Amino acid sequence: MNDLHQMAHDARVAAWTLAASDIAQRNAALLAMAEELEASKNDIFAANQIDLVQAEQDQLAAPLLARLKFADEKLAAVTAGLRALADLPDPIGQTTISRELTEGLKMYRVTCPIGVIGVIFESRPDALVQIASLALKSGNTVLLKGGREALNTNRVLCQALRTAAEKVGLPADFAQLLETREDVAAMLKEDELIDLIIPRGSNAFVRYIMDNSRIPVLGHADGICHVYVDKAADLNMAVNIAVDSKTQNVAVCNAMETLLVHRDVASAYLPKLLPALEAKNVKVLGDEATQAIIPVLPATDEDWATEYLDYTLSIRVVDSLDTAIDHINRYGSGHTDCIVSTDEAAAQAFLTRVDSAGVYHNVSTRFADGFVYGFGAEVGIATGKIHARGPMGLEGLTTYKYKLLGSGQLMAEMKNGTRHYTHVLLNEDCPL
Amino acid sequence: MNDLHQMAHDARVAAWTLAASDIAQRNAALLAMAEELEASKNDIFAANQIDLVQAEQDQLAAPLLARLKFADEKLAAVTAGLRALADLPDPIGQTTISRELTEGLKMYRVTCPIGVIGVIFESRPDALVQIASLALKSGNTVLLKGGREALNTNRVLCQALRTAAEKVGLPADFAQLLETREDVAAMLKEDELIDLIIPRGSNAFVRYIMDNSRIPVLGHADGICHVYVDKAADLNMAVNIAVDSKTQNVAVCNAMETLLVHRDVASAYLPKLLPALEAKNVKVLGDEATQAIIPVLPATDEDWATEYLDYTLSIRVVDSLDTAIDHINRYGSGHTDCIVSTDEAAAQAFLTRVDSAGVYHNVSTRFADGFVYGFGAEVGIATGKIHARGPMGLEGLTTYKYKLLGSGQLMAEMKNGTRHYTHVLLNEDCPL
Repeated sequence: MNDLHQMAHDARVAAWTLAASDIAQRNAALLAMAEELEASKNDIFAANQIDLVQAEQDQLAAPLLARLKFADEKLAAVTAGLRALADLPDPIGQTTISRELTEGLKMYRVTCPIGVIGVIFESRPDALVQIASLALKSGNTVLLKGGREALNTNRVLCQALRTAAEKVGLPADFAQLLETREDVAAMLKEDELIDLIIPRGSNAFVRYIMDNSRIPVLGHADGICHVYVDKAADLNMAVNIAVDSKTQNVAVCNAMETLLVHRDVASAYLPKLLPALEAKNVKVLGDEATQAIIPVLPATDEDWATEYLDYTLSIRVVDSLDTAIDHINRYGSGHTDCIVSTDEAAAQAFLTRVDSAGVYHNVSTRFADGFVYGFGAEVGIATGKIHARGPMGLEGLTTYKYKLLGSGQLMAEMKNGTRHYTHVLLNEDCPL
Repeated sequence: MNDLHQMAHDARVAAWTLAASDIAQRNAALLAMAEELEASKNDIFAANQIDLVQAEQDQLAAPLLARLKFADEKLAAVTAGLRALADLPDPIGQTTISRELTEGLKMYRVTCPIGVIGVIFESRPDALVQIASLALKSGNTVLLKGGREALNTNRVLCQALRTAAEKVGLPADFAQLLETREDVAAMLKEDELIDLIIPRGSNAFVRYIMDNSRIPVLGHADGICHVYVDKAADLNMAVNIAVDSKTQNVAVCNAMETLLVHRDVASAYLPKLLPALEAKNVKVLGDEATQAIIPVLPATDEDWATEYLDYTLSIRVVDSLDTAIDHINRYGSGHTDCIVSTDEAAAQAFLTRVDSAGVYHNVSTRFADGFVYGFGAEVGIATGKIHARGPMGLEGLTTYKYKLLGSGQLMAEMKNGTRHYTHVLLNEDCPL
């Protein structure tokens, strides 16, 4: 199991089978996974107990321990997720363009799996099941590297998923578990066998992956999210959105890190906001204009570029909508940014010109999530612009191929005028 | 002009303007470009003459000289292309998903430009106009590096396009010309300012780019295309498709490099094919089984991985459809591959299991082209699987953002049950 090159090769071979599998078989595998996980629950919980005991000895922080724990509640959520995924339509084999090119020659663009995907994720064992099941549903195979704190749990979970796949006649090697950092380093070199790497982690980690691999990388990095309170904002709504965006869950990438406030409403808004933040124990930093209105600690340029992931907020007063947009495009991470305003023109300018995956009008940044968007689940949230952007679900795990069905057409005939391009849209599914 | 960092910065600033521009203005710019090129024809042709004289002194091969030449015929094609592009629908601002998430909160996925794109292309001056105009239509800005043989022509062309953009009120810096290899090396470092690099060239060149940049790369590399003649093929059709795929234009990436023939038809097919290839002066190489049937030179393993771009063809006799598919997935470049067969089941297996951007049934590989596919034009043909695959037109130059239009929705309300997800598909355009 530990020769990474062999594992990548096995994943590639399994990918050929998955690409040619039908959706009934892939859905049967998802249902078998739910059953296999339920049947293995004692083994899973026992393995998780070992991880938890070790993590407590290592003095892991309480929120991390909570994420690591895998008991009845998480199992129920995970198996419900698998059964819901089985109900979603097949993302592959979908015809997205159909066109007659010339008489008797039809072109179809048809979705297909990407192939072999390497995913590196944090210490949350339920993430393993989510990622592996999304991959199988979309006909891909995965090499999975989870957090080392969850290794015992991940081993049992991955084995259960592999067993379930085999029970319905699909290759167990659709999912393989990497166990060490050396495995990850070796995986990055397999650009002939692996089609895509999805790292979930810090900006520095994603950059390390990009710098050390020729394999395309879809980065899921920092979330430096902003709320901008416009001069035309409903200030009560702006307080509620700011508090929710900052405090509903501080440890996630779609939490707000910096609040921007238009100068015209700053003295009315900030004194309303401060007690609401203090009630949630938020440490507030501000620029000079903010400090002139409410008693807060000074914020520096470094704060604008910091993802706190904690009960800390930096506030800047801005002179205009343009300054707010410039600030976000300069310091933000392209994740999710919100304008609170009753002025539709201001909202439109913000939504058009802020260069982020999520641009929100009058709604908490915490809504940036694949389940919330109706995608079933997500492999991560992409902060780049290529391929998939924002919450990445099944569609992001597919590519497409052009299928041309002809009857002997030659380019020489097109060039000498024997045949002509018709370019008629067909609106039909590819028969092959 | 020569400080690359400043150029990239100017491109980024221009990209903000382009992203907020309307389609009427972008189309007006395309029409103005056609007029400006026609008005500048004497300057263009004179500059091209300087490039041609130098290229002749440098003993450039005849096909390359033909590609470099820019006279009345090319000008007419280029201006016709610009006017046709102005007629195509706007690729940006298109709503591709619309959904109510919870009462009063609507999500829209809306296409938008990628931003700043670096394109490195070969010595064909008309490519500069095609790439720059596709970028402008899709709201992007470009840094362009053409072949050094075309430098004088490219300077005049690029200046004409910049003048035309300014005349309709769009930033001239939507297109900027790089002139040296040092500029390219410097461009690869600007990952904060440039969103995508599109290199058109050899595999080795694309790998060099990938190894030296954090910027996402959409590679347009080798085309090692195959035709597979199945045991159930119409042999006359198979002769015509093989000859067209090999010889209609040998210097292009969609030309066939290796022919695979099923053993059952090899002795009937190869003696029919050979004279047709010889009539076109094709040098034929073959494996031992081929040599046993027709008098050809031996082909080695290296031949299977070679893009000749010339009047040379390697032939291999295979025992089965599976062997043909394995050969293509092992030695091919994922560009375009064709099966000639009257057996629909064999065709379906080939189209499903060959892992290439184009999978063809009974049609010449020469049809792999953005214009042929009805995309208007192409920036290149992507051989990777991420983002765009195959001929890459306007759609490949776009990404999307999620616009959420709310009325104060909070995640705390979703978690405490005050609100519920509705996830109703809306099928409407985003109003902002």
